[in-house]
Amino acid sequence: MDKRRGSAPAHVDEVGSFDHEVDVLVVGFGCAGAAAALEAAAAGSEVIVLERASGPGGSSAMSGGELYLGGGTPVQQACGFEDSAENMYAYLSAALGPNADDAKIRLYCEGSAEHFDWFTKHGITFNPGMYESPSWMPPTRDGLMWLGENAWPYNEVARAVPRGHRPDAESFGGWLIMERLVAAAGDAGVQTHTDTLASRLVLDETGAVIGVIARKFGKQVSYRARKAVVLTTGGFVDNEEMLLAHAPVLSGHGKVSDGLDDGSGITMGLAIGAAVRRMSNTQIALSVVPGMICRGMLVNTLGQRFINEDVYPGLASVAAVRHQEGRCWVIIDQQGFEEMPEADRWGVRPSHVCESVAELEQELGMPAGALETTIATYNEHAANGEDPYFHKSSTWLRPLEGPFAAMDPSTAFPAVVGEGGGSGHGISGFTLGGLHTTVDGEVVDLAGDVIPGLYAAGRASAGMHGDGYISGTSLGDGTFFGRRAGRAAAAH
Amino acid sequence: MDKRRGSAPAHVDEVGSFDHEVDVLVVGFGCAGAAAALEAAAAGSEVIVLERASGPGGSSAMSGGELYLGGGTPVQQACGFEDSAENMYAYLSAALGPNADDAKIRLYCEGSAEHFDWFTKHGITFNPGMYESPSWMPPTRDGLMWLGENAWPYNEVARAVPRGHRPDAESFGGWLIMERLVAAAGDAGVQTHTDTLASRLVLDETGAVIGVIARKFGKQVSYRARKAVVLTTGGFVDNEEMLLAHAPVLSGHGKVSDGLDDGSGITMGLAIGAAVRRMSNTQIALSVVPGMICRGMLVNTLGQRFINEDVYPGLASVAAVRHQEGRCWVIIDQQGFEEMPEADRWGVRPSHVCESVAELEQELGMPAGALETTIATYNEHAANGEDPYFHKSSTWLRPLEGPFAAMDPSTAFPAVVGEGGGSGHGISGFTLGGLHTTVDGEVVDLAGDVIPGLYAAGRASAGMHGDGYISGTSLGDGTFFGRRAGRAAAAH
Repeated sequence: MDKRRGSAPAHVDEVGSFDHEVDVLVVGFGCAGAAAALEAAAAGSEVIVLERASGPGGSSAMSGGELYLGGGTPVQQACGFEDSAENMYAYLSAALGPNADDAKIRLYCEGSAEHFDWFTKHGITFNPGMYESPSWMPPTRDGLMWLGENAWPYNEVARAVPRGHRPDAESFGGWLIMERLVAAAGDAGVQTHTDTLASRLVLDETGAVIGVIARKFGKQVSYRARKAVVLTTGGFVDNEEMLLAHAPVLSGHGKVSDGLDDGSGITMGLAIGAAVRRMSNTQIALSVVPGMICRGMLVNTLGQRFINEDVYPGLASVAAVRHQEGRCWVIIDQQGFEEMPEADRWGVRPSHVCESVAELEQELGMPAGALETTIATYNEHAANGEDPYFHKSSTWLRPLEGPFAAMDPSTAFPAVVGEGGGSGHGISGFTLGGLHTTVDGEVVDLAGDVIPGLYAAGRASAGMHGDGYISGTSLGDGTFFGRRAGRAAAAH
Repeated sequence: MDKRRGSAPAHVDEVGSFDHEVDVLVVGFGCAGAAAALEAAAAGSEVIVLERASGPGGSSAMSGGELYLGGGTPVQQACGFEDSAENMYAYLSAALGPNADDAKIRLYCEGSAEHFDWFTKHGITFNPGMYESPSWMPPTRDGLMWLGENAWPYNEVARAVPRGHRPDAESFGGWLIMERLVAAAGDAGVQTHTDTLASRLVLDETGAVIGVIARKFGKQVSYRARKAVVLTTGGFVDNEEMLLAHAPVLSGHGKVSDGLDDGSGITMGLAIGAAVRRMSNTQIALSVVPGMICRGMLVNTLGQRFINEDVYPGLASVAAVRHQEGRCWVIIDQQGFEEMPEADRWGVRPSHVCESVAELEQELGMPAGALETTIATYNEHAANGEDPYFHKSSTWLRPLEGPFAAMDPSTAFPAVVGEGGGSGHGISGFTLGGLHTTVDGEVVDLAGDVIPGLYAAGRASAGMHGDGYISGTSLGDGTFFGRRAGRAAAAH
C-alpha cells in the first residue's frame, strides 16, 4: 500500500466487490461504539463493529468507570440529593468551559436521568451510597461521589449536588460497563470483527461515505455500509507525532488509554475534508492525593498557592501543569497527614520533612520567606475559617503547624487511577479534541456541511468539552452521543 | 458553486482550459509571498502573485516592521554587539519553545546575517542606533532594540544581544518593507493579479497540485502552475469560527491583521489532506506599557506577581492572558510614573491612585494584606537590588513608595502597536498555527509525505514557533522561509 494513501479515502470504483455488507458499520468497540451499535440495532439495523484489538473494550474497559450523570438519578435520590437538568447544566457549563459546546451540554443534561436508566437496563448497577471524601477514585463501592460541584466558584454557580456515578465494581469499573454493553450488543445481534484495523473510508461518486477499507492479519478487507459509518476509534494520546502537532502538553507524559488511541479515525476523517475542533484540549491528571491537598496546600515553586485545593482534582492538575509549568509542591502538616484515611497514604513518599517552614522552604529552593509568608497568611485566615484568596471550603481550613512535609507530585505519589482508562504517574492524560460533529454525531466538513454517511462519537470527536474537564464526561458523552449517533446512523 | 465544495480541490478534468499559466503561482502578497516571488523570479521562473485585496501588502504592510535578525548584522556591529548564529540559536530556541521547530530555528539563525543583507539589497535600510528602553515599538528611528534577550532566564541561556531590527521609518515600518519588496518584485518581472481570491487548489490525476481556482469580481479565473503553487495567505485570526475551533483564546479580542486573515490557504490545504500543526498557538499582546511594568510591577487579582516584568512584553502578556485569565493590574509608584518618557505616558489613564497600599488593594478588591505582602517583600529585596522570586534586572529594582497607581491593561492603556500588523487595545494577537511544512516550505500531508507541487510560508504555515513568540519572528520567518519556498518551487 502506497504510504501517501495511508489514510486517504478509497473511491468505490477502486474497491470492486465488498467483502462484507451491513446497514451500519461502527469502527471501534469502546463505550461510544457499544452505545452506537446498541441503538442502531435497537432501531432495526444490521450492525457490524470493527475492533482493531483482539477483543472489545478499548480504553473504556480499562477506565475507572466513572459516569457523570445527574438531573435526579435514583442514586442521587437515594442519597438524599435533589437535582435537576437545569442545575446540572449550570454546573457543567461552568466546569467544562469556557468555549464548551453549549448545545451538547444542554442535551446531555436534559437526557441524563434517562441515560442512567439505559445503563441499568443493560445490567450496570450502582450502589446507593455516597462517598464524601475528595478522591480520584473512592476505595469503597459507593455509587456516588463529588466531582467538584461543592467547590468554589462552582458552588455559587449551581446548587452543589454530587454527580459522579460509579458502577458497583471492585476498584476500576470500566470493565463492568463494557462487559455488560458488549453482552447486550451480542444479544441484540451486533456482530463484532476483532483484529480488524480500519484505515480508509470509501466514498461514492458524490463524496458520501459508503464503507471502510480495513486490514485483518495483513489482509485487506472491505466493508460496505448501506446506511452509515460511525467512527468511535478514540483519541490520539498514543500517537506521539499527533500529540506534538496538536497537544504537546501531554507529549512524553503518561497516557491514559489502552495503548491504541492513535487517532486513526480522526485521521481518516481529516483525509476526506472533515473539520476538527479543539485538538489542543486534554484531560490532565497530576498524581496527587486529593484529600491531602485539601488538608494541606498546593504551592508553586515560589511558595505561592494558585487554586482552592478542594476543586475537582483534574482542575487543580490543569492549574499546576498548564499554568505553573507542572512544577509544584504538596505541603501538609503532621496532623493533616495523620488524618488521611490509611488507603490514601499507601505508597505516598514525602521527600522533605522539616520542623519549621523556614527549613522546608530552604530545602525546596524557594526564596527566603516565600513559603513562610504563604503559610502565615493561610493560617491567619484559616483560624477564622476563611480563605479569602481561593475560597477553599471551611471544612478543610485549619492553621497548619509543624512538622511539615513536602511532596513533589511527579515522584511522591502512586499513580492516579481515573475514568479515562489506564493510569499515570506524575502527569498523565488523554486528548479531548477530534472530529467536529453535530449533536447527532454527523461529521461536519471544512465548509460547515454534514458529510453524508459519516458519524463519530467518543474521543474521536470533539465532545461537550471546552477548556475544562470533569471525570465521567468521557464515558458519559461517549455513550450519550454514541447512542444519538447510532440512532441517526440507523435512520440515515 | 456548491457550498460543500467551497474549499475542496478541483480536478484537472473539471477545469478544462486554464485562463492563465505560469511557472510559479504565489497566493497572497504579504511578506512571505513577496519573498517567495522574488526568489522564484531570481531563479528564472515566471511568477504570478494573486492578492485578494486591491493592492499588495497584506498584514505585513500594516505591521510595525520589526524583524528578528542576528548572528552579527552590520547594525548589531555598529551598536557594539557581538553575536553569532550559535548564540542566536540558543536564545531563540528557549524563547520560542517549548516544542519549537528546531530545524527551522537552526536554519533561520545560520542564515540570519545573510537574510539581513537580502533586505538591504532590496532597499530596506536600518539606522545603526540602539534603543535601550523596553518598548513594544520605540518612538525613535533607532534600528535596534531588545526583545527579551537581556531578561532572566534568557540572559543565562545565551549571551544577551539585542536582535530586534527596525527599518528606517517613522513609527510603523511594515509598509516600508512591503513597498520595497513589492517594487523589487515588479522590477524582477513578477506579475500581480489583485482583487483575486483563490479558493480551491487544482489537482492532477496523481494528486499533485497543478493550479488554483480563484474569483475576481465574481467571475471564476483558473491558473495553471507549471512548477508549483506557494500559499502565503496568512493566518486565521479574522475567521471567528476557526478561532473558536482552534485558538479560542483570541476569540472576541483584538485582531492584529489587515482584516483578511481568514485562513483560506490553510483551509485549501486541509481540503486536500494537508497536515496542520499547533493551530492553538497564538501571539498575544496585552496593551501594557513595557517601561511601566518594569518600573512597577504586574500582579494578578490576588496581588501576586507572576513574572519578571522586564521580559519581552509578549511573554508577560501570555503569562497574564493564558495563565492569569487575562486579569491583572499594573502597579506603579509616583516616582516610577514620572520617570517614564513622556511619549510612553500618552493616553495612559490610571484608574486608581491611593496614598497607601492598603487603600489600593481594597479598591482593587484584593484580599486584605495581599498586595501589601507582595510590595513589602518586593521592597525588602529591591533595596538590595535583588528579585529572588522572578529575577527582574537590578536596573529596575527600587523600593516602591506611595502614592501608588493601579491600571487595568484592558482599559488603561492605548493600543499596542506591534509587528504583526494592525494594533489592539486590551488583548490582541494573531495565530501561529498552520500548514505543516518542511524547511523548504513543502506542505506535508497526513501521512507525513510531501504533497507534490504545494508550498507554504508565513502565517499560513506553522513556522519556527513552539509555545513561545518573539516580535519580528513573523516578518522574519515569513520572509526567510518564503524565500526558501520560492527557490524550492522554482526548482520543482
